[in-house]
Amino acid sequence: MSAEKERQMRIEALKKIREQEEEARKRLSQIKYKIAVLSGKGGVGKSLVTANLAATLAKKGYEVGILDADVHGPSIPKMFGVHGQVIYAGPAGLMPLVGVGNVKIVSSDLMVPSEETALVWRGPLKTSFIRELLSMVAWGPLDFLLVDLPPGTGDEPLTIAQLIKDLSGAIVVTTPSDLTRIVVKKAISFCQEVKMPLLGVVTNMAYFVCPVCGTKHYIFGKGGAEKLSEEMNVKILAEIPLDPRINEAVDGGVPFVIAYPDAEATKAFEVLADSVISMLEKKNGESQDTSSAGEQ
Amino acid sequence: MSAEKERQMRIEALKKIREQEEEARKRLSQIKYKIAVLSGKGGVGKSLVTANLAATLAKKGYEVGILDADVHGPSIPKMFGVHGQVIYAGPAGLMPLVGVGNVKIVSSDLMVPSEETALVWRGPLKTSFIRELLSMVAWGPLDFLLVDLPPGTGDEPLTIAQLIKDLSGAIVVTTPSDLTRIVVKKAISFCQEVKMPLLGVVTNMAYFVCPVCGTKHYIFGKGGAEKLSEEMNVKILAEIPLDPRINEAVDGGVPFVIAYPDAEATKAFEVLADSVISMLEKKNGESQDTSSAGEQ
Repeated sequence: MSAEKERQMRIEALKKIREQEEEARKRLSQIKYKIAVLSGKGGVGKSLVTANLAATLAKKGYEVGILDADVHGPSIPKMFGVHGQVIYAGPAGLMPLVGVGNVKIVSSDLMVPSEETALVWRGPLKTSFIRELLSMVAWGPLDFLLVDLPPGTGDEPLTIAQLIKDLSGAIVVTTPSDLTRIVVKKAISFCQEVKMPLLGVVTNMAYFVCPVCGTKHYIFGKGGAEKLSEEMNVKILAEIPLDPRINEAVDGGVPFVIAYPDAEATKAFEVLADSVISMLEKKNGESQDTSSAGEQ
Repeated sequence: MSAEKERQMRIEALKKIREQEEEARKRLSQIKYKIAVLSGKGGVGKSLVTANLAATLAKKGYEVGILDADVHGPSIPKMFGVHGQVIYAGPAGLMPLVGVGNVKIVSSDLMVPSEETALVWRGPLKTSFIRELLSMVAWGPLDFLLVDLPPGTGDEPLTIAQLIKDLSGAIVVTTPSDLTRIVVKKAISFCQEVKMPLLGVVTNMAYFVCPVCGTKHYIFGKGGAEKLSEEMNVKILAEIPLDPRINEAVDGGVPFVIAYPDAEATKAFEVLADSVISMLEKKNGESQDTSSAGEQ
């Protein structure tokens, strides 16, 4: 290929990226609050927290969507009973699937034939896939879009987080045993790097209440939340207890908070949702005050 | 630099690698059984299982070492109370630290000043670091060397696993909620790819016995072990229960099986150690039979 032809092709590719970014900006502007959910490492239940926070917000009457950007092990569709279904393209763009509890879902799992396929993707391919998704999905007007980022604080979650313009805030999910560890601190400084306002930390698997005798057990440790909160000046948004029915709900395809509306974990998700709503509305109020003040 | 000089430098580098490999082979030949510990993903307690299996084997009177090759979050030194200490070089080579319970330990954490430093390493650097370690550590004669690999089934654990010649076998650590999932199946086929004989799977966080009322709770699900065992023809080596004291032990710098010799989890680690010993000795016996049969 001649140098000139190569240059032309690069320009075309860049142009396409710009167009996609512009399209994504337009589509995302219809969404009031965009929240990134991240974790310092895998295995802490990030997707589970995303799914149940979304379902709790939807129960409160909000319009909610989830972008499952955790292309490694997309588990969101399964949790909402839409695993195996495929997203189709309508005149307005790609139509999200609507999961149990009226949550709109877009996931790489809904685009590729099998779970195995998703695993072999390389970094750049994932990024361009998410960029394309953002430019093509017809979410329609939403109150909340939760973006389930890949675990860790490496290049991949960083790149994906940067693709989503005007993020309202980020939530870091962790467990008590990691709470005060370097992985969580890295996730917190990650938010500062990407200039995502950190809403706070959710402690998953916080404790277990024996359903037989009612005793509370801190299986993965206790007291880390207060320590982290002091050290890093971070808000602990909620402590989600362990419950054997949480895993059952995942397999059953119904979000836990819908399947077990009276469970203690469900109440914890309500605490989380209320914290998130009030923090975002307060911030939104402040920024509107500022902008109207600026207009005077 | 001239092309000839560059060629010379590459030859020198390759020669150094060969020499290191030869040195590593010599040193590792003094170790009877070399076992790789891996997991399909992070957060399943791989390092915890490695540490407590090592301590259990040492309690039985074996000479045991751990190579902490999980350079992302080296936690082995902390579990054995040698975190913060630094490895020094003696006339025979690098001297492993001796942790609580008489387990010899080598970890990247013992070589670099802070935890943060380890996190920024790139793939090739990690590989050459492990190769160098293998060529330099004076383990002396050991019965068992456990190699704690980085989580996942990507390039990194693969490369490190390939650096260790004559691996006796591999153990895959998982939790009940992941037991039948694609991550574990990937880890199992990973062993086949690298031609590591798979000893079997350890289910960590298998269940929780309420210390107040004695009820057994399968917090992360139940029945997956049997299903996986059937589907993949894999042995379940042990089921390690949850215990709040496990995390306390990690912070206390004493392996759980030493701190709590009568705990149910300690008994589970004994089951694991006995399975591993009998499988390896049986295999060893078979291969000696074969070789002596060949000599006749």
